[in-house]
Amino acid sequence: MEKFTRNKRVVIITKILLESPNKIIGLNKFSELLNAAKSTISEDIVVVREVLERLSMGKIETIAGVAGGIKYIPSIGYDKKKEFSLELCNLLEDGGRVIPGNIIYMTDLMYNPEIISKAGVMLSSCFQGKDIDYVITVETKGIPLAYEVARNLGVQLVIARRDSQVTEGPTVTINYVSGSNGRLQQMSLSKKSMKNCSKCIFIDDFMKGGGTAVGIKDLLKEFDSELVGIGVLVDNKQSEKKLIDEYVSIVELKEVDESSIVGIQPSKIFS
Amino acid sequence: MEKFTRNKRVVIITKILLESPNKIIGLNKFSELLNAAKSTISEDIVVVREVLERLSMGKIETIAGVAGGIKYIPSIGYDKKKEFSLELCNLLEDGGRVIPGNIIYMTDLMYNPEIISKAGVMLSSCFQGKDIDYVITVETKGIPLAYEVARNLGVQLVIARRDSQVTEGPTVTINYVSGSNGRLQQMSLSKKSMKNCSKCIFIDDFMKGGGTAVGIKDLLKEFDSELVGIGVLVDNKQSEKKLIDEYVSIVELKEVDESSIVGIQPSKIFS
Repeated sequence: MEKFTRNKRVVIITKILLESPNKIIGLNKFSELLNAAKSTISEDIVVVREVLERLSMGKIETIAGVAGGIKYIPSIGYDKKKEFSLELCNLLEDGGRVIPGNIIYMTDLMYNPEIISKAGVMLSSCFQGKDIDYVITVETKGIPLAYEVARNLGVQLVIARRDSQVTEGPTVTINYVSGSNGRLQQMSLSKKSMKNCSKCIFIDDFMKGGGTAVGIKDLLKEFDSELVGIGVLVDNKQSEKKLIDEYVSIVELKEVDESSIVGIQPSKIFS
Repeated sequence: MEKFTRNKRVVIITKILLESPNKIIGLNKFSELLNAAKSTISEDIVVVREVLERLSMGKIETIAGVAGGIKYIPSIGYDKKKEFSLELCNLLEDGGRVIPGNIIYMTDLMYNPEIISKAGVMLSSCFQGKDIDYVITVETKGIPLAYEVARNLGVQLVIARRDSQVTEGPTVTINYVSGSNGRLQQMSLSKKSMKNCSKCIFIDDFMKGGGTAVGIKDLLKEFDSELVGIGVLVDNKQSEKKLIDEYVSIVELKEVDESSIVGIQPSKIFS
């Protein structure tokens, strides 16, 4: 069977690690695929770990024991985070985004894989090490971002629906009050979609009054589960009184008038 | 400024390529980040390319010219595709999945990043080189898969909604007839969401009668755009007469009875 040089082995190790963030991978897997002794693989991993950490491109953790191995923890350096937050501000400042009702059109950004994959790493790094079981969102615009956060944390995604669906089996439905306009709304979650007694984070595109986050909290209570964190792409600081205190955002905006967004800036943790 | 050994440079090159599939990356980017001559980077790229191709883990293409550089094209080897298709069959054969109406509960799979990221590479590889502009889906269950296909093809995702939303600006709405139950349904797409005269592929979780695909085709016509391909995770062969002929699926199922799924197997192209 073919042998590979270290140059080539580290390429494959990097690829496999990156494709399964936050999942423990046994050294056997590398050893078999690359036809190399575990001790050799261990030396390869040192190379990968050193350069990733040196360039603030993620960490590799070693997990001891029978079920042990290594896992890749995605992260981005401070400079890159700031650069990305500023880039997002520039994209949002584009005048054509304000639509009737002083609403900001940002669907194009939420469905852009280049933007969402970076935002996903940034938000996931805020919840790393918190033993999250699920990432939850409510349809529709936040789904790609929530998916990326779930992928980076190595956990399952859960999506609450606006109405219950025949394809979901038995569902739990709750009512909640929108924080911004006081309207009563509904969300449903399939009983099969998560185990009870879980720790979840809620990911969404936009934080306004915080009503949806309160709704998610109530919905999770029906599963005896806990909301332990909230992350959004954009925090609308125009709603001064929010129903939720603790959450992280990538950018925050102060004002929207009829023609453009004014006063958008990176959130404190990323500036 | 620090210099890196080849071992370390190839790790970083691999990481950057993998994070932006199907996007052209100029050698300057690597050269500056790694403080190495372009000729050195070119040699590094040869190493990365050789081992990825050797293990059927993707290709690296070189694009000549001023805007040139290299791009990573994700792919999976034949054996891995077959292995994954069989794994998916096993997961679906689990008896607890059939819910009232002989519907198969597969939301857990559609929201599982480990499964969806692999399925995304497999489906994207069917449309590689076809100059796709957008990946389109209709909310909700197919969104993570469509997002992965879009990410792998390096294009924007577009999501049709079941009803028009205030956050989407002006929308185009069409009616379509569900292929399986003949019911009239609606879908809407924001005018801002795509450029006219585009080539799109439609990605979804499930193909039954093909009515949704016909709806997408009609919707795209309103944008003077063309549907050039369809990919789904599961093809339900129970609906013999489909409104759509050409599409790819990862697995196909022949029969669902009240207690379990019978006759599920990898689709021909992956078996």
